[in-house]
Amino acid sequence: MSKAAGTRVDAVMDAVRAGINARAYTPGMRLPSVRAQAKTMRLSVSTVVEAYERLAAEGAITSRPGSGFYVAGPVRPLALAAIEPRLEREVDPLWLSRQSLERDASTLKPGCGWLPPDWMHEAGVRRALRAMARADSALLTEYATPLGHPGLRQLLARRMAANGMDAHPEQIMLAESGTQAIDLICRFLLEPGDTVLVDDPCYFNFHSLLRAHRVNVAGVPYTPNGPDVDAFARALQQHSPRLYITNSGIHNPTGATLSPVTAHRLLKAADGTDLIIVEDDIFADFETHPSARLAAFDGLSRVIHIGSFSKTVSASVRCGYIAGRADWIDALADLKIATSFGGGRLAADILLTALTDSSYRKHMEAVRTKLAEARERTAARLSKIGITPWLVPQAGMFLWCRLPQGADAAAVARACLNDGVVLAPGNAFSQSLTAGDFLRFNVAQCGDDKIFKALARALAA
Amino acid sequence: MSKAAGTRVDAVMDAVRAGINARAYTPGMRLPSVRAQAKTMRLSVSTVVEAYERLAAEGAITSRPGSGFYVAGPVRPLALAAIEPRLEREVDPLWLSRQSLERDASTLKPGCGWLPPDWMHEAGVRRALRAMARADSALLTEYATPLGHPGLRQLLARRMAANGMDAHPEQIMLAESGTQAIDLICRFLLEPGDTVLVDDPCYFNFHSLLRAHRVNVAGVPYTPNGPDVDAFARALQQHSPRLYITNSGIHNPTGATLSPVTAHRLLKAADGTDLIIVEDDIFADFETHPSARLAAFDGLSRVIHIGSFSKTVSASVRCGYIAGRADWIDALADLKIATSFGGGRLAADILLTALTDSSYRKHMEAVRTKLAEARERTAARLSKIGITPWLVPQAGMFLWCRLPQGADAAAVARACLNDGVVLAPGNAFSQSLTAGDFLRFNVAQCGDDKIFKALARALAA
Repeated sequence: MSKAAGTRVDAVMDAVRAGINARAYTPGMRLPSVRAQAKTMRLSVSTVVEAYERLAAEGAITSRPGSGFYVAGPVRPLALAAIEPRLEREVDPLWLSRQSLERDASTLKPGCGWLPPDWMHEAGVRRALRAMARADSALLTEYATPLGHPGLRQLLARRMAANGMDAHPEQIMLAESGTQAIDLICRFLLEPGDTVLVDDPCYFNFHSLLRAHRVNVAGVPYTPNGPDVDAFARALQQHSPRLYITNSGIHNPTGATLSPVTAHRLLKAADGTDLIIVEDDIFADFETHPSARLAAFDGLSRVIHIGSFSKTVSASVRCGYIAGRADWIDALADLKIATSFGGGRLAADILLTALTDSSYRKHMEAVRTKLAEARERTAARLSKIGITPWLVPQAGMFLWCRLPQGADAAAVARACLNDGVVLAPGNAFSQSLTAGDFLRFNVAQCGDDKIFKALARALAA
Repeated sequence: MSKAAGTRVDAVMDAVRAGINARAYTPGMRLPSVRAQAKTMRLSVSTVVEAYERLAAEGAITSRPGSGFYVAGPVRPLALAAIEPRLEREVDPLWLSRQSLERDASTLKPGCGWLPPDWMHEAGVRRALRAMARADSALLTEYATPLGHPGLRQLLARRMAANGMDAHPEQIMLAESGTQAIDLICRFLLEPGDTVLVDDPCYFNFHSLLRAHRVNVAGVPYTPNGPDVDAFARALQQHSPRLYITNSGIHNPTGATLSPVTAHRLLKAADGTDLIIVEDDIFADFETHPSARLAAFDGLSRVIHIGSFSKTVSASVRCGYIAGRADWIDALADLKIATSFGGGRLAADILLTALTDSSYRKHMEAVRTKLAEARERTAARLSKIGITPWLVPQAGMFLWCRLPQGADAAAVARACLNDGVVLAPGNAFSQSLTAGDFLRFNVAQCGDDKIFKALARALAA
């Protein structure tokens, strides 16, 4: 074969290899037919055949007589734990979630992201369960409608209106949980390889969720008033991200609140882009004064608003919701039916009963008061051992704290785990891994002296 | 520019266009850099620049100074309803699901896939709710552990053992529903472009679910004893599918049961391939005599066994399960945490209480008896108007029936819908759309004469 011909064969082989490396061709995928490839690359069929045969000889692709050429190798199952970057265990979001979820009465969990059972709306759930036991049989046995319980969606529309957000109940869909709500939105909007912006730091499970979607993640530094808008604008330029996922209300993990001017500037920066923003508002009921909501400023045009009741009523009765453009909600309902065949009726009915229970308002007032006391008490105890909050939050359960003398939070977490104390090291929350000397504390889980003794020991070591 | 140079520029432009058409390059995705593309295609940088500039002029791609070239246009959201093939409404799986899920007391639903409320284990759910109202606060307010309720997983292991399947509770993970169980497995194992085998006909929501995963679907004709093993073997050869999703126990929609010899031959045909089989066993408790289980023959090596309680206990209390290889279950738990942060405790606790309630066995005996009577009565009424079952099922709620003189099931469904009767036309279940003269009837939903009058009218027209 002539040198020129050899070069053309190499060109085809390189093009296929590049496609495989870029995951444009994935294992098991059928390659373009010899004719199609020849036409695309303006080369002869014999050149492409030669290239495919050589790639098959290399084992890069396999030939299936009568069917064509396929990319070789079995598909690797999506093992999230194996996706780069590999992190040390203590800052691996999935490991941290499992540590918090594995129940063990003897373990103390200042690093977990929810309230102790006796801080939740337990009484309301009990009353709701007794009421449900007398409900009609359809409620106890039937699937929910595609959008979910109309009464709960009406209540959510009223609650959103109280925070300046205008959403018709038909623009609200119930989901299995707040996390599933965001997951459905990601499935609806993202392609593998898209870029998604998150706050740095942000709720660590966002990192796990976005891994599952095989997207690129870029962090936007978070300030005491919300994301750094200049960095946000630069990130839009640099990555043209498809989605930005953030907390409104109380930010996890910092406890900061979004200021109106930041919200306004952030939405202005997004003008003219096709960025979509997911605003996760699960901590809304912890606020003493409602802060700015992107969905209120934007009118649910590019902003999708989600929430759940896992932090205030119960994490045992799963239910989340999505509020957004009506046409998107309709398509999301299809996606929900296809992937979970919609929800059941019971959870939404229990939650509606518990939320409309006259005692819910009193319950949350009491929780907010207890949290204010716990924040003050915990901050004081932490300062005694040189651990200082990044800011003093207006509300919520979180204190985002810096360790003294740049101590390594992962090492501290490792040491405390041996003392039966599960912490949340900063880098589990940080896309840029620049929070190595931070810990997130849940003040509602910090009642036990053992926690501070273990911290002091770990810091002294 | 010389003609040869022009041809090289065209080659680059065609390669990019082909990549876009094949969705290898998706909107918003950054193209390979000019240098990388030049290197890959063994062409000069200036040639690639010229090609990219022309594509940008065409609007196919956009140039972002300092950043590179990107595929133009916003990402199209994943609108399942828009994915080809577009089907007429009456045989669109998603439309059919919505029709069945939208509750309207006046509507009759012989086409829906579940029992009427008063056929479900309502009394058991009521007792469970009363018990839960007295449960400890952790149960009412906390997240479940990653694998879910240990007691329910132990019960499932015992139930599987009774059907010859050996699974340790650590090999069983609870999910939000049976559909979510299959969805998690698809996310774990599939890449867009993979091929998945389904039975033809099969449960219509499998088609919606697989659309959401953007995979190719191939059908295997279903016989009264299970899938056609020769067609199955040919499909393995032709498509080297990654996954095969089927029902064991009672097949939806045909009501057929898998014979041991078919199960054995099917697994033998899969020897030496990397095919994974998902066995959906949600109708197990309707069986009078347990039929063959692929998971029992295979020992949960290539078979993953899933189920739920939505058909027997309640569809309002959502919970499904996955039994499979321990290493896969562990990775699936990560995926569940990432995408739904695990389940709540309440649903699993209610179901465990309802299932271990001494009345559950009696309840299911009564349901099986009622279904046997309803199958006979419904078959007799249908035969009067010339509609004949494809086979007489040993158990379950379904009759898969052929219409007289090849009448068009979609047209019949359209006519009956105007009479307030929702039917399930055959082609909603058929990958090859070869069941145009079939309807699936749910005998538990066929008590009302109006149904048969509407059918007779529609057939006469």
